[in-house]
Formats: sequence, C-alpha cells, structure tokens
Amino acid sequence: MSRAFNFSPGPATLPEAVLRRAQAEMLEYGNTGASILEISHRGADFIAVAQRAEADLRTLLSIPDDYAVLFTSGGATTVQALLPLNFAAPGQACDYVVSGHWGKTAIKQAAHCVDARTVASSEAGGFRDVPARETWQLSNDAAYVHVTANETIHGVEWQPIPEAGNAPLVADFSSSIASEPLDISKFGIVYAGAQKNLGPVGITVVIVRRDLLERAGQPRAPIFDYRAHAAAGSMLNTPPSWNWYVLGLTVKWMLDEGGVEEFARRNAAKAKLLYSAIDNSGGFYRNEVAVGTRSRMNVPFFLHDPALDALFLSEAKEAGLVALKGHRVLGGMRVSIYNAMPEAGVQTLTTFMQEFQKAHG
Amino acid sequence: MSRAFNFSPGPATLPEAVLRRAQAEMLEYGNTGASILEISHRGADFIAVAQRAEADLRTLLSIPDDYAVLFTSGGATTVQALLPLNFAAPGQACDYVVSGHWGKTAIKQAAHCVDARTVASSEAGGFRDVPARETWQLSNDAAYVHVTANETIHGVEWQPIPEAGNAPLVADFSSSIASEPLDISKFGIVYAGAQKNLGPVGITVVIVRRDLLERAGQPRAPIFDYRAHAAAGSMLNTPPSWNWYVLGLTVKWMLDEGGVEEFARRNAAKAKLLYSAIDNSGGFYRNEVAVGTRSRMNVPFFLHDPALDALFLSEAKEAGLVALKGHRVLGGMRVSIYNAMPEAGVQTLTTFMQEFQKAHG
Repeated sequence: MSRAFNFSPGPATLPEAVLRRAQAEMLEYGNTGASILEISHRGADFIAVAQRAEADLRTLLSIPDDYAVLFTSGGATTVQALLPLNFAAPGQACDYVVSGHWGKTAIKQAAHCVDARTVASSEAGGFRDVPARETWQLSNDAAYVHVTANETIHGVEWQPIPEAGNAPLVADFSSSIASEPLDISKFGIVYAGAQKNLGPVGITVVIVRRDLLERAGQPRAPIFDYRAHAAAGSMLNTPPSWNWYVLGLTVKWMLDEGGVEEFARRNAAKAKLLYSAIDNSGGFYRNEVAVGTRSRMNVPFFLHDPALDALFLSEAKEAGLVALKGHRVLGGMRVSIYNAMPEAGVQTLTTFMQEFQKAHG
Repeated sequence: MSRAFNFSPGPATLPEAVLRRAQAEMLEYGNTGASILEISHRGADFIAVAQRAEADLRTLLSIPDDYAVLFTSGGATTVQALLPLNFAAPGQACDYVVSGHWGKTAIKQAAHCVDARTVASSEAGGFRDVPARETWQLSNDAAYVHVTANETIHGVEWQPIPEAGNAPLVADFSSSIASEPLDISKFGIVYAGAQKNLGPVGITVVIVRRDLLERAGQPRAPIFDYRAHAAAGSMLNTPPSWNWYVLGLTVKWMLDEGGVEEFARRNAAKAKLLYSAIDNSGGFYRNEVAVGTRSRMNVPFFLHDPALDALFLSEAKEAGLVALKGHRVLGGMRVSIYNAMPEAGVQTLTTFMQEFQKAHG
C-alpha cells in the first residue's frame, strides 16, 4: 500500500518532508563523501548537526540557559533508572504521582536504590483520571516529585501539571513534549523519548536544571553520570548519531511549521474533532477518561461491541488508516495524534468512523 | 564530492547495497503503509525484522544455542557498566587484561561496584603489543576475565585470544566481530557496538552464555537486567528499531558475500597490502605495533615528518580517501578497514601513499 495515515503510539508517524530529506542524504551527507550514518560523531560535520539540533530544540521549547539538554540512548525507561542514581541519595524518599502505566514503570526502575513512594495514584479508578493535587501525600524530604505529563496507554493528560512544592518536579513528557507551549522553569527535569513527538526512535532528550547536576547522587558507572554527559556534550561515548540527526530534522520542521503555538492549535483541533466523533456516536464509540484530563495525544476508545474490533481494524486499514489497535492492557482502539499527524488524517478517520457506524450500527 | 573510500573508525563505512536498501524503504516498508522508522516495535512487521536479524547473526557467527543474543542501546561502554552489575557480586574481583585505551575504559565503568583489577597490561610499552598470557596475574575468585579483542585506537589485536582458566572470558569485540571465524564457545560473553563491523551506530550486540544470566549480580534497575532483556527478546522497552533493521541488512549482506570465512580472506588481504606499503616505504611511513599483534581492522601509522600530516590528509581527500586522521591520543594516521571496506579502497590508498611519498619523500 502507499503511505497511510499512521496512528502508531510510538515509534510514530514522522513528517514526510523529514523522511524525504533523510532518504535524499542516505548515501552522501554534504561534502563528506559518506552517509551521515558513516561519519565520526567527533568530526566537524556531525558536531554541527548535533549543535544545530540542540539550538533548534532550545528555540522550539524556549529552554532557559540554566538548563542542560542531554541527548541519550536507552529510552525514557533508562532515564527512569538513572534519575535516582543521579539525583537522590541512597534510600532517600522519591515521590511518584501515578496517573497510568508509565508512572508505575518509573517507580519500578527506581525502587532498588531509593524509597520510591507512590504519593498519589488514580489506579483505583482504572486510570481514567489524574489524582487531584489535594490528594498528593508529599514527603518532607523527597529528592524529587515525579509525574507523567501524558499517559500514552491510558490516554490521561495533566492539564496543567500542578506545582509540587519544594522538591523539584521531574516530568516524563515522552508523549506530549512540544505539543503546546510549556514553561520549563517550573520543572527540575523534563525528559522524553523522541519517537513520539520529537522524531525518530533510538534517542531520548533529558532537560535538566544545571544546579541539580551538582547533586552527588549515588555510586554509578561514569557512563550513567548525567553531569559527565552534560560536560561532554552528550558524547561520552558514541551517541546514536543518525537518530540525533533525524531528531534535528524533525525539530527544524516543527519550527518551520510555526512552532509549539501552531502545534497547540492543530493538536487542540485534532483532539476536538476526534473526541466529538466519539461523544456524538450515541454510545457506538466510547472514551472513558474524565473529560478534563483527556489526552490530546493518545485517544483510547472502545466500540460498543468488541466483536466488531477486528472488522473495524481491517476496514480501517483498507481505508488507509493504520495502527489503531489499542494497547493490550486496555484493548479496544487507540489513536495517537502527535504533532506529525496532519488534521486531514483525523478528518479521514472520523469520516471512516461515522461510515463504519452507519454500516454496522 | 561523490562517495569516497571512508576509513572512519566508527561510525564506519557501510555496504552501499545496505544504504540503498534503507534509502529505498525509507518512506514505505513492505505493506505497512509507513516507514520502518514509524512502525511499532511490537507489531508483526518489526518482530519479523528483529527475529530475522538474530537468526542471520546466529548463522553468521555460528552462535551456539546455549547463548542468548541481546540487542541493546547505549554502546559498548554501557555494556562495560552493566557487566559487573549483572555478573559479579558487590566488591567481587573482576580481572581485566589491558591492551589499549578501551580496556582501560572497561575498568573505569566497573570500578564503583566491584574490585576491578588490572591483571595484565601493555601500557608501559605504549600499548604497542598485548600482554603475554604468562604475565596475567589472574585472581582465584574473579567473576570474569575481561579482554579487548582488538584495540581500535592503538591498532593492537589478540591473535588469538588466550584461554583464561576457570573464570568466564568476557571479550569486547566491538571493532573485530565477524571479521573472521570465531569459536564463541570459548567465551562467556562477547559484545560489540555495531557501528564498526556489524552495521549502523546506535545498537549493540551482547552474546551471553545462558547459564551466566542466572547469576544474581547486584542491585540494579530492571532495565539494566540482562536476564530480563533476554526473556523479553530485547524489547523490555522501545529498542532502537531502525538501527536494528539496518544491522539486519548488514548481517544479511555479509552472509550473501560469503560469510566470515570470506571476510577473513578479504581482511587478511587488505591488511597485508597496507602493512606492506608501510613496511616497504623505507621509513617514510611507520607502524609501531609488534608484528604478531598488528590489527587487521585498524592500522595506525605515522609519517616520518609530522609536518606533512595536514598535506597528506588534504591530498588524500582530493583523491577520494577520507577519515584517515589518527586518534588524538596517538596523532598520525589511522586506517580502519572493516568488512565493508572493499579491497579496491585499500589499493587506492596504498597507491596514493606511494605517490605521496614520491612527491614529498
């Protein structure tokens, strides 16, 4: 089939212009005589790519100068493992606010070396809401307070993330970074796997307030030391350079399209269109998330009759709409509508949903 | 310029056929309606790619069934940090045999949690040789004995790696894996960053004898647990899927070209041609490594007059020969001639070297 509207939760759809550029440069990058896949990360050509990506990301996200930007491998889960090692003392309390699956993984990655406390959770309600700020039982001495800005599986998003108090707020923004303007200065650390809203799989962004890098943390290998990564420009060892390059192309594309203000507008329009189609289906389609915390990025929904799921997916694919199957934890459908998903994709999807309902309702 | 002969130490030259395939599939992979960069790592299409890559790598390297093959992110340096966490008890002796720069980094990544002992080293001689087996002062109770099969900077290669005794031998094969037949069963663990001989940057291969995965190791995050990685098919979290795909293309290319026996022949021929050109230059060019341990993969050499270095590099680039500058630790030149470097590249280089000598000798 030709290129479809791809609603994959991540790795996710990329701007076609980015793919075409990566394609065009696959055999020769600039005047290097080689692919960017084949050149040294320590040479001037790649250093320029890496620095441009950081500068553009700083512009896109309005990252203050007192924050370091790290480009790392290992995904957001590895960040979750390195947070306590870098920013907490052995056994220190670390507070976790849990609004879905990924908040729980963050705790699992930290529990072996700190007192990783669930200080609030919406799990009892099936993660159909966020735990309200007034329910947070924060520790007095926590190294940090961790939140998940947007839960990719459960489709629950903080709008906005509340203030946490004295301890620095650490936020997993993997599935909503750059989707709207964000005041980075409210956070100690913002991190995100790139494969949803920042571009390709295989690279992760960690934005850290520089004073936090002075924390002693706990014994760890030098390669797990974020201060050393910052000092080395994220090149302590060979970074995932090609992935970094594609991230840079994607960030530049977002700037060219109008930046986070424009994507906030597009994302609000796409989400409104999709939730309206669900809500106006008379129960044929159903989203169960509390309205004020419905994700603008990941929209899980259920057909009134799960026996229709397979038919829905196969007819959707025939209509050029792919990767709609829900996560195994929830079942049903999930529609991921990150920055690179055009409004036309959601329009095509909602039209398909209405036609499917007419045929099978 | 058009595609040059690229002697980069890593990221390194790739087979043009692999780049062309990746280029052709950049916008659409198979019948998915998307790029392989955009599809879920948990979908059937990518799972097939991942499994095929593993099966082909097992064939290429004749990996026995009692070894697990992991595909990880973070590079060889991250493996060096995870070795003691997975395979040694806290404070346990771990023996390191050091024949160059990378043997020393392995110790640095382990020293915070185990007794990382340098049991033999050729550093006093400037790493121009390997430390002979009879000089190894092995511990009685070591968790493992670590060696670096080929030192990328110093151009020193074990030929062959000696037996270590009771403790399992752990070998960093980053710059020489798949360059010739290897009896994996002599090792407990073989690991390699892919960006030299196995394909793209951003993915690392760890081949582990399965009984070692039963070791308790020491407290670590789940994402740093190799047993869990093995059980999850290297998909504990989102892997660097595109990099994995290009690794698979490269491994398949090596099989199609005739496998490790054929590459052993080509690599020996390339190395012989280059070392002969150096040795027959009457001292105009000089390699300082002990002859029996000269690397077949990375050939550092010096011009008799370092004042000619810049001219050598600029004229070489004009002749379509790039990335010849030596590592800053050694200076001079370094020629990396991994599997994907054709014999024609080395012939062109040696002809250039002879002409340069005639002009400036």
